[in-house]
Amino acid sequence: MIENEAATGRFILVCEHASHMIPPRWGDLGLTEAQQLAHIAWDPGALEVARGLSRRLDAVLIHAPVSRLVYDCNRAPDMAGAMPARSEVHDIPGNTDISPAERLARTEAIYLPWTEGLHGLIARRIALGLRPVIVTIHSFTPVFNGKPRRVEFGVINDADAALPVAILNAARKLTRLQAELNAPYSAKDDVTHTLRVQATPYGLPNAMLEIRNDLIATAEAADAMADQLAPVLNMGLVEIQKQAKAS
Amino acid sequence: MIENEAATGRFILVCEHASHMIPPRWGDLGLTEAQQLAHIAWDPGALEVARGLSRRLDAVLIHAPVSRLVYDCNRAPDMAGAMPARSEVHDIPGNTDISPAERLARTEAIYLPWTEGLHGLIARRIALGLRPVIVTIHSFTPVFNGKPRRVEFGVINDADAALPVAILNAARKLTRLQAELNAPYSAKDDVTHTLRVQATPYGLPNAMLEIRNDLIATAEAADAMADQLAPVLNMGLVEIQKQAKAS
Repeated sequence: MIENEAATGRFILVCEHASHMIPPRWGDLGLTEAQQLAHIAWDPGALEVARGLSRRLDAVLIHAPVSRLVYDCNRAPDMAGAMPARSEVHDIPGNTDISPAERLARTEAIYLPWTEGLHGLIARRIALGLRPVIVTIHSFTPVFNGKPRRVEFGVINDADAALPVAILNAARKLTRLQAELNAPYSAKDDVTHTLRVQATPYGLPNAMLEIRNDLIATAEAADAMADQLAPVLNMGLVEIQKQAKAS
Repeated sequence: MIENEAATGRFILVCEHASHMIPPRWGDLGLTEAQQLAHIAWDPGALEVARGLSRRLDAVLIHAPVSRLVYDCNRAPDMAGAMPARSEVHDIPGNTDISPAERLARTEAIYLPWTEGLHGLIARRIALGLRPVIVTIHSFTPVFNGKPRRVEFGVINDADAALPVAILNAARKLTRLQAELNAPYSAKDDVTHTLRVQATPYGLPNAMLEIRNDLIATAEAADAMADQLAPVLNMGLVEIQKQAKAS
């Protein structure tokens, strides 16, 4: 799902966990209705923040239309998290003992069109002489495995930390958010798959954003967050452009 | 162009410069017939060696059906070498002052289907629980910019040198070829684009092979080279499997 495709801004916004939708082919994966709507199925609020940023930054936005419990587009097909048998404290009955043929079917139905769509966006802009900046947008639950999380805004780096650090510094300057680098996760947890496959090999500036989902629980709150973060992303980009010129 | 797609061996063989064909849409790029058949347009003999290896290793083979002078599939769309205005001592008139729209058109016509085809092969195998091993196969001219080259068989690494080093050692043990690591090129020359985009992000073993083209100038010579190199690749793979078990 691509929105604002003709955008002229440098950012490409990516939302792998935008939807909790489970296509009929996969039934309910053995989950209750509450589980199907919980953070284990998607990143609540992330798409709204991404849309708010897309408008403010004139940025193209790509988001996955299927729950990460069917296929997590931020994971390679052989990672346990791609079709998780367990997520936080929940078992996913439809994902226990997945056969190789079923892994292949989900990879072909969801992961391949997703990666091709995003890669096409990136390669086309590169061909036009633009150097897109890839930012993935996620939300995280305030309480995980029973433990509350203090961080409100996490910025996570893959191989190149320049943009994440610049965004972190801008967030500390422009907002009162509790902002941290590589929290509540880091690349070691395999959460930077999209950046690693799509941005790092092309040498594109990139970052992963994590927003605590209690701060973006309504459409208004998500829009207010986008309002706070748009200047943060712009300041981060200006900073790395300065660094590039200086070096 | 995919051959032997149902192969069950672990290797995926890749030949980016298999063809000197220029589709009618791009005319002759302003080149003489001799230039259109020279090593600047393709890697003579590489496809024959790759086919010989594909048969002997029961390996799937993917090769690009278009001259690298139209689009070099081993280059990102913004690299000068993707649509080179000059190659070795030859100007390429059809590639001077390429407009952004033309860069985009060639990227969409050639690079995107190529990368999607190869990525699909890799992702499907990963989903099935196989861990493919990516080997790109090239040939190089014995005389470059007037200087003769002594190396006969080069093995080039991207981020992970384990397989290239194992192949080099096997070549020195099993053949009399003048074999060298990172010769006549290395990753610094941007020659490992395919490996960097397709293998490194998935943590797959990978290597780039370079064979001096005077050694594979006939179909018989290319087949004899495949006969020499098939056990070399197998020995290299066995060696890194041993190392993986030991660690």
